[in-house]
Amino acid sequence: MHSKGLLIVITGPSAVGKGTIVRALLRQMQDIRFSVSVTTRPPRPGEVDGVEYFFASHEEFDNLVVTDQLLEWAQVYDNRYGTPREQVEKATAAGHDIILDIDINGARQVREKFPEGVFVFVLPPSLGELEARIRRRGTEDEAAIQRRLAAVPGWLQEGLTYEYVLVNDRLETAVEQLRAMIIAEKCRTDRQGGDLIRRLLEKGEID
Amino acid sequence: MHSKGLLIVITGPSAVGKGTIVRALLRQMQDIRFSVSVTTRPPRPGEVDGVEYFFASHEEFDNLVVTDQLLEWAQVYDNRYGTPREQVEKATAAGHDIILDIDINGARQVREKFPEGVFVFVLPPSLGELEARIRRRGTEDEAAIQRRLAAVPGWLQEGLTYEYVLVNDRLETAVEQLRAMIIAEKCRTDRQGGDLIRRLLEKGEID
Repeated sequence: MHSKGLLIVITGPSAVGKGTIVRALLRQMQDIRFSVSVTTRPPRPGEVDGVEYFFASHEEFDNLVVTDQLLEWAQVYDNRYGTPREQVEKATAAGHDIILDIDINGARQVREKFPEGVFVFVLPPSLGELEARIRRRGTEDEAAIQRRLAAVPGWLQEGLTYEYVLVNDRLETAVEQLRAMIIAEKCRTDRQGGDLIRRLLEKGEID
Repeated sequence: MHSKGLLIVITGPSAVGKGTIVRALLRQMQDIRFSVSVTTRPPRPGEVDGVEYFFASHEEFDNLVVTDQLLEWAQVYDNRYGTPREQVEKATAAGHDIILDIDINGARQVREKFPEGVFVFVLPPSLGELEARIRRRGTEDEAAIQRRLAAVPGWLQEGLTYEYVLVNDRLETAVEQLRAMIIAEKCRTDRQGGDLIRRLLEKGEID
């Protein structure tokens, strides 16, 4: 007998550095799985189906959408990207935790379809630092950067609807906090903690 | 500007070993305060008022009860013991965390008066191990031990109403879990996490 695993959804404004936090966490907690996206983009040389992405044709992707097999999806230029529901459901049902690193729009869709997830919103230490990180990426023109910055207050306001907030200032602290959220959530009585009590009551022992 | 500190209430069946967990936690997290009880019991040689206990006369204790200055209290033989509300309120208002190690009846009273606390219920790894720990104490006769054991299932059932559950099997794991609960609770949006977002929105930075 085992308890259900957690889906941990980590989101926040673009360039806030959530990918860095997630990679550092996965090095520390090697039992946690990483949710692999499905995409219509063709594989690049060396990319393996099921590792970097699950690769799907446009028809296959249409079918995933229509049959509600994606927890979220988005169109980016000519291609679509999504989170397969089955991967998350299989992992958590088998007692494995799985983490999903996703933008704010995607997280909003996941929350509707999988409200039992643990939702974490990453903050920059300051708005100036967030702007500096966006500019350092150097992937957008000035007009796009300005649009992005104008959207930040609205995003932060939406952060208030999340369960947990994490500041990406010192990486070590951010990783410790994310790790703490995962450990603590498992101890919650409405998650695995309650299963422990029920096992003690039924069998006289936990293991 | 600072956020409110936490009151962490740790409880569970007697002899489950919560005191050991709390002492180990306080060695690791030295910023956390320990809630000192008030008692009508006279000080023993070497005991200092405000360190082991706050010492009060029966009249002073009556006054604390009548004026609702105790988060909980109990009579033990000829003396009374209680948790001063002011100590907890002052500490948390000043942004300090404070921990309270208390039996299940006391925790129930505290929850009514201070529902914003973080309530943690400690479980034994098995009912057999709990019985062994009670017997090892050697402070009670067989009839008292039997009464205590008969009460355990009811207590465990009550554990289901707590937020968090902790198994006192390996001390190191139990302390890590309690530490994780404290770190994670501070990140919750309805606690300090929300203050961080509001600071970013108002001042453009968190510090």
